[in-house]
Amino acid sequence: VGGIDGEVLGFTIGKDPALDLMLAEEDCLGTAAHVTMLSRIPVRPRILSATERDRVVGELVAIIRRIRAGRLRIDETDQDVHLALERLLTHRLGDMGRKVHTGRSRNDQIAVDLRLYGKARILDLFEAVHDLISELMAFARRHKSMPMVGRTHMQPAMPSTVGLWSSAHAESLLEDAQLLKGAYVLNDVCPLGSAAGYGVPLPIDRGLTARLLGFRRPHANVLYASNARGKCEAAILSALSQIMLTLSRLSEDLILYTLPEFGYFRLAPEHCTGSSIMPQKRNPDVLELVRARASRVLADAAAAHGVVRGLPSGYSRDLQETKEPFIEGLGTTLAAVRILVRLVGGLRADPAALRRGFGLEVFATHRALEWVARGVPFREAYRRVKGDPAGSNDGKGLAGRIRSERLAAARADFGALRARADEVRDFASRERRKYAACISRLLGVNYPGLERRGGGRRAGSIRRT
Amino acid sequence: VGGIDGEVLGFTIGKDPALDLMLAEEDCLGTAAHVTMLSRIPVRPRILSATERDRVVGELVAIIRRIRAGRLRIDETDQDVHLALERLLTHRLGDMGRKVHTGRSRNDQIAVDLRLYGKARILDLFEAVHDLISELMAFARRHKSMPMVGRTHMQPAMPSTVGLWSSAHAESLLEDAQLLKGAYVLNDVCPLGSAAGYGVPLPIDRGLTARLLGFRRPHANVLYASNARGKCEAAILSALSQIMLTLSRLSEDLILYTLPEFGYFRLAPEHCTGSSIMPQKRNPDVLELVRARASRVLADAAAAHGVVRGLPSGYSRDLQETKEPFIEGLGTTLAAVRILVRLVGGLRADPAALRRGFGLEVFATHRALEWVARGVPFREAYRRVKGDPAGSNDGKGLAGRIRSERLAAARADFGALRARADEVRDFASRERRKYAACISRLLGVNYPGLERRGGGRRAGSIRRT
Amino acid sequence: VGGIDGEVLGFTIGKDPALDLMLAEEDCLGTAAHVTMLSRIPVRPRILSATERDRVVGELVAIIRRIRAGRLRIDETDQDVHLALERLLTHRLGDMGRKVHTGRSRNDQIAVDLRLYGKARILDLFEAVHDLISELMAFARRHKSMPMVGRTHMQPAMPSTVGLWSSAHAESLLEDAQLLKGAYVLNDVCPLGSAAGYGVPLPIDRGLTARLLGFRRPHANVLYASNARGKCEAAILSALSQIMLTLSRLSEDLILYTLPEFGYFRLAPEHCTGSSIMPQKRNPDVLELVRARASRVLADAAAAHGVVRGLPSGYSRDLQETKEPFIEGLGTTLAAVRILVRLVGGLRADPAALRRGFGLEVFATHRALEWVARGVPFREAYRRVKGDPAGSNDGKGLAGRIRSERLAAARADFGALRARADEVRDFASRERRKYAACISRLLGVNYPGLERRGGGRRAGSIRRT
Amino acid sequence: VGGIDGEVLGFTIGKDPALDLMLAEEDCLGTAAHVTMLSRIPVRPRILSATERDRVVGELVAIIRRIRAGRLRIDETDQDVHLALERLLTHRLGDMGRKVHTGRSRNDQIAVDLRLYGKARILDLFEAVHDLISELMAFARRHKSMPMVGRTHMQPAMPSTVGLWSSAHAESLLEDAQLLKGAYVLNDVCPLGSAAGYGVPLPIDRGLTARLLGFRRPHANVLYASNARGKCEAAILSALSQIMLTLSRLSEDLILYTLPEFGYFRLAPEHCTGSSIMPQKRNPDVLELVRARASRVLADAAAAHGVVRGLPSGYSRDLQETKEPFIEGLGTTLAAVRILVRLVGGLRADPAALRRGFGLEVFATHRALEWVARGVPFREAYRRVKGDPAGSNDGKGLAGRIRSERLAAARADFGALRARADEVRDFASRERRKYAACISRLLGVNYPGLERRGGGRRAGSIRRT
Repeated sequence: VGGIDGEVLGFTIGKDPALDLMLAEEDCLGTAAHVTMLSRIPVRPRILSATERDRVVGELVAIIRRIRAGRLRIDETDQDVHLALERLLTHRLGDMGRKVHTGRSRNDQIAVDLRLYGKARILDLFEAVHDLISELMAFARRHKSMPMVGRTHMQPAMPSTVGLWSSAHAESLLEDAQLLKGAYVLNDVCPLGSAAGYGVPLPIDRGLTARLLGFRRPHANVLYASNARGKCEAAILSALSQIMLTLSRLSEDLILYTLPEFGYFRLAPEHCTGSSIMPQKRNPDVLELVRARASRVLADAAAAHGVVRGLPSGYSRDLQETKEPFIEGLGTTLAAVRILVRLVGGLRADPAALRRGFGLEVFATHRALEWVARGVPFREAYRRVKGDPAGSNDGKGLAGRIRSERLAAARADFGALRARADEVRDFASRERRKYAACISRLLGVNYPGLERRGGGRRAGSIRRT
Repeated sequence: VGGIDGEVLGFTIGKDPALDLMLAEEDCLGTAAHVTMLSRIPVRPRILSATERDRVVGELVAIIRRIRAGRLRIDETDQDVHLALERLLTHRLGDMGRKVHTGRSRNDQIAVDLRLYGKARILDLFEAVHDLISELMAFARRHKSMPMVGRTHMQPAMPSTVGLWSSAHAESLLEDAQLLKGAYVLNDVCPLGSAAGYGVPLPIDRGLTARLLGFRRPHANVLYASNARGKCEAAILSALSQIMLTLSRLSEDLILYTLPEFGYFRLAPEHCTGSSIMPQKRNPDVLELVRARASRVLADAAAAHGVVRGLPSGYSRDLQETKEPFIEGLGTTLAAVRILVRLVGGLRADPAALRRGFGLEVFATHRALEWVARGVPFREAYRRVKGDPAGSNDGKGLAGRIRSERLAAARADFGALRARADEVRDFASRERRKYAACISRLLGVNYPGLERRGGGRRAGSIRRT
Repeated sequence: VGGIDGEVLGFTIGKDPALDLMLAEEDCLGTAAHVTMLSRIPVRPRILSATERDRVVGELVAIIRRIRAGRLRIDETDQDVHLALERLLTHRLGDMGRKVHTGRSRNDQIAVDLRLYGKARILDLFEAVHDLISELMAFARRHKSMPMVGRTHMQPAMPSTVGLWSSAHAESLLEDAQLLKGAYVLNDVCPLGSAAGYGVPLPIDRGLTARLLGFRRPHANVLYASNARGKCEAAILSALSQIMLTLSRLSEDLILYTLPEFGYFRLAPEHCTGSSIMPQKRNPDVLELVRARASRVLADAAAAHGVVRGLPSGYSRDLQETKEPFIEGLGTTLAAVRILVRLVGGLRADPAALRRGFGLEVFATHRALEWVARGVPFREAYRRVKGDPAGSNDGKGLAGRIRSERLAAARADFGALRARADEVRDFASRERRKYAACISRLLGVNYPGLERRGGGRRAGSIRRT
Repeated sequence: VGGIDGEVLGFTIGKDPALDLMLAEEDCLGTAAHVTMLSRIPVRPRILSATERDRVVGELVAIIRRIRAGRLRIDETDQDVHLALERLLTHRLGDMGRKVHTGRSRNDQIAVDLRLYGKARILDLFEAVHDLISELMAFARRHKSMPMVGRTHMQPAMPSTVGLWSSAHAESLLEDAQLLKGAYVLNDVCPLGSAAGYGVPLPIDRGLTARLLGFRRPHANVLYASNARGKCEAAILSALSQIMLTLSRLSEDLILYTLPEFGYFRLAPEHCTGSSIMPQKRNPDVLELVRARASRVLADAAAAHGVVRGLPSGYSRDLQETKEPFIEGLGTTLAAVRILVRLVGGLRADPAALRRGFGLEVFATHRALEWVARGVPFREAYRRVKGDPAGSNDGKGLAGRIRSERLAAARADFGALRARADEVRDFASRERRKYAACISRLLGVNYPGLERRGGGRRAGSIRRT
């Protein structure tokens, strides 16, 4: 770090030591692929022999175990994960360690780390989203025909069912998963070998490193591989924003419908929290936090987009500032989906409270359409019903109305939703298996055997350190 | 509108009369599909006979012609496009006009209008993006091996080429097009028939209206069809944001590289503007506006996301406020892409100025790797070169260095980029043809024959009225 | 406009012709001050004689009348308001018209226009905010001791009053007015004479133009006068955002508390809207729109901040893109405050519904503190009450509890709020009078006599054209 | 924490243990004021005797020492700083500790902590901003008349000086300081005693606690005291955003003007950083990070505004999510200002490079105005010069032009800027002294003697842990 002013160094490093810990395993994987490729390219003398490559990879596996045991530290001397790991390798392997950085830059290293990290997190997220869809659909099936007032402008509007309400949120998540898949595929492109954005004057094989790490393909243009940093993160954060929008609306619904004034639903007591001054309180803090964290993830996305906008081509240090919103956004979204899996799992409906929400005016449209059925044009029928919204003289009671309305649940195609949910799960499993197979081959160990730590705790570790 | 306070009415209507003009043609299409479906559902008596359906559709075609001639006005009495058109229909067709609103709500009407509008605009955008990619690739091919200093931190870093620079922006747009496709597919789902979010007590056929309008499918859940309003627009705006990020970076590059201090590129004189006080000025206003409008589109996206966040299920009037950012965001992005097609088309490179950018220190990495080729570990080679960055003693001149570096253009795979550009174009053409065929069938006229007005002018009309 | 490509010209002009119409009167005022100053600076020959100055100012007054009569048009040939007015002046006054642009640039012209426009709109806003505070305080006084359940997490928490609720929103607006005053003072600095940011080689007197237009002072540094463009607008938009946050919360409260499930408050029927499909509906559309438009204004602020961030010193065309968010943000906020004045004025409270919200558990904290009064430590008292939240055995009935709680209204100091509201009104009136006196002197007519058009319609005109 | 699900608890606690460490000292101060007030209110028996009060305050001083020594830990059992400190007090003082929470809630506790924290940080920021203004003005004075090309659209436009450039950024900071002062005063209002937003049924004295802690006044309305949470933070973040906008522009200028193509300025070598692959690089990473962190602070502001928008009155847990953006935004801004103090202090200008930027066309406006001086109307003079921008025949050489232009520095009023800078410093010192005196009185120790830790390290500790 030579003659750099200490304050300047501290300022530029920022939170990297903490954030980079999240990326340490991915950094090892990128290095493993890089040295494997170096050992195979046709230059004489070989940059790295096959034996050297094996020793480096073996050492990287040892480092991964150390990372998983929580025994890696990155301090300000290291600055970042790349230098920390290079120091470790050099300490163990001498000159061999000093060779691993041949033909790459920290720019493409961090870029590939973030791609691999994003991939793993998105796969976790697919599973969590699938679980939440399953809980919502299970709740929808259990209450498929249970009457519930449908609202517009939060005012009672038309008859509906709990099944329609719950499965609406499930379809929302299905569309979110579709966008997330788009972001996943965008992310699944390998920047390794682009070096500082202009390649290197060595016959390195970018296609090979891409394949070794399980990517769909390398970038076609090395400068774009560099320019894509931050931009790809911003696109993923946009996909996460969509999920958070869905969760914020589900949360808002539950906050309102669990109020004593509605009482339609009840959260499990162990999912509520109390107050330090009001002994009687049972508050839906989780739901409020999810609602608020949607704003946080929107802001994470805004930060990443804002940083990238107007940058000239080629790496600028500005891009470091997209790392934290990216890691935070992924962690926040994953944690929010997972906690709602739990809350929806514990949710109870109260049929009596749901029924109390109905008044005859909720059937006004129905009555207008009954006039239509007798040949009255809709606008005329509308006018008649408006004069008598409660339909005092139409001879059908509220109970009968509610009963007959149960058919409304047919307005959600549960089969189609289920099929689409299965596709989400299948896509995620397939991708996860493919990735595991690639990395196992690369490291020469059973990568599923090196069990990853659960995503929640991991996200948590950066949040709570 | 009855007893509503005038100020309140004005406040709620807002800019709808102007904005809805943009959606008037789409509103006619939605109504044509709706009445066609009504005429076919198995209720007795028929809500609308086949003959009535034909008369309504014929009248809608006449209205579309009127809209295209700029002769539709929506005033505050109408409030919005739906009531304006219903009034026109009723004026011409009497009771028949009063029937068309049977089984739908303004909620699903505006929702389907926005989907159709979005579809048409995104198809326009695909074409414009493809054109810009083509111009960038043509520029890249013409200057494939023309040396240009590659920069990081805007400082000279490594040798590169104009071809690499230009095609990097092309690959960026290709990835943007991929995300845009995801947004297009998300948008291609039909909300018609969801009414106010709870369906209607009539055996309407949502699958049929979806097919008639050329949508991939209807929503599975009618409440979600309503909840998706605003959310879908937000997702599209996120895709547009990615395009604007790319354009903002291309613009920033051109602003800098056309400065006299660089002079790498020259904009055509007719693409520059002057000053009211400084007679000598030739300014890149277009590029500055594109850079700034990227922030505008990011804000449009932020507005749409912000409005939707935390809303309870079921329609709320809040959603009206996503309409303007959506229409503006689409218009702004389309206009920005199109103007850059023009500017890149007129761009000239100055080989002499490009060469002046080189110094020997740009080859420092190369020299380090030459040591590596002789068996020195990279970190040691790096140390040696750092002590003598200009390489005064290495016996190779700058000219020779620059010459040999022309190979670097190989670091962009032009063939792959071309193939992906073709896919973008083919996807857009195929979708456009399919859509035209559907609507032609629905209206009974040759829908391509009813030539649409160009997207730019149309977007312009709302911007500049 | 010489040899500029038509598409490029259209792109750069953007919405300026429409937006600049909003600034036309202010542009005349700036020109009047500029020519007055030119006529007084000590160069020989005089740039403009006193007689010439009087003729120009007389013509400007005539143009202002024309603007107010809605008879000014800015077309694409003019590009912007400055050229349109210069053309008008030259048409009437010949060479004299061609002299008015001496020693200034369109940069400082538009900058001063925006400052004057902002000043007028903020003064309007102060009045509207004061009116809303008055309505909220009047409602608070009328219902000072009317019991209302205080909520946290939207759950019933502690006893409170309608007076406390209503005056809380008033205090929020008072703090917003305080920030708005800060923005007003920031805005009240004159950029005229900075030309393109580097002054002019003429002995112009920037202090004089500043005084003539009623500004506190000119900028100390002409380059900063130019750099402040956009930044000042962003600061004002931040102040507007605070107002919109307050309004969004007031709206949310009213949306919830006017639901049938609560029924605490009732909007006047003429302040609600209906549905096209549900004849019975009375919806709080205004409140939903205010809630949503808060997100719009936040996005306007984000746009302005985003455009300015990272710009190099000196004018860039990017700044044009802060004009629309600025004008829109001001118009939206003003309209929202004004419509809520109306709605709060028509608001009714329902004492019976308010009472129904109470249960004995709302007094749990009170009961805990009764234990404390008997010497039990709070944490122990808390524990006891938690075991019996409804206080079944405490011998005091709900009605008695509610009655005694009326004192709680004392928890808002109405007198202090009233005094601060008066200060807001007084500040605005004083500033308005000072400004009118200055401009009257400058134009030689009774500027209050040239009655300004009402802010709402004006803001509306750009929204609805 | 009773029966709360572990995952739910973890989710709701979030990052509070880490964030609350930043607020621990302020929490002690709030508690000291609260118990002092409790010991003085006229209830029998006293809630706390004077002696008990003294023991609690003594214990709090001990805890503050412990906090400053870095020996406080908040774990998940504690949940937050309030419970952690209550536990410590109870551990040491028994029942006395259990009494301190009488008549308050965690809501007003955290609210007052944030106010005190904000106050201290803003005072630090005033000093740092003042230091940066001083460095910029010193640089301006040293290079007051050194010629520098003034630019618009980044293109050379008119003659200017380094003094004008540097002092322009100083005036920008002076206006930012003015807005920051507005935010400081807004923040300087005491929420303590509002409890959960509805006060408490005890005759507590909110005016007294406000005075004890050095606040200007308490909130007039206890519900608003609660509603202001998040909103006040958002207002402060808006003020910080303005500072970051200024810093981002200063950084952009320096990034460009230190490029080899310009070379106007040079950063001290120890303020630049290198590259892991390119041994020759000296990069302005600090400036790029400041530019990017401006986007981060804008996003922090967006997060806080977004969370608050549309919340109903009364505390919701959503507000917890404004804490991190608030603390982060303050820390980021403070660190950015401080590092730029260092960089500007080490900045060097290169007169030769600055001169090379000039061409005769930069004097085109001057030449037009020379025609004007001879009686030609400006528009005609403009036309003439446009035909001969370099003024080949006007008989004055470039050197002479540049020399005579030195007068231009007069276009910045250095004296006025200096006077305003002094006001900023004086305001901050006065407020800091007042605060220290209050707290010293409250704690009975010399509060300046309990030296606070430096802001940088403190902000750093949360960033870098």
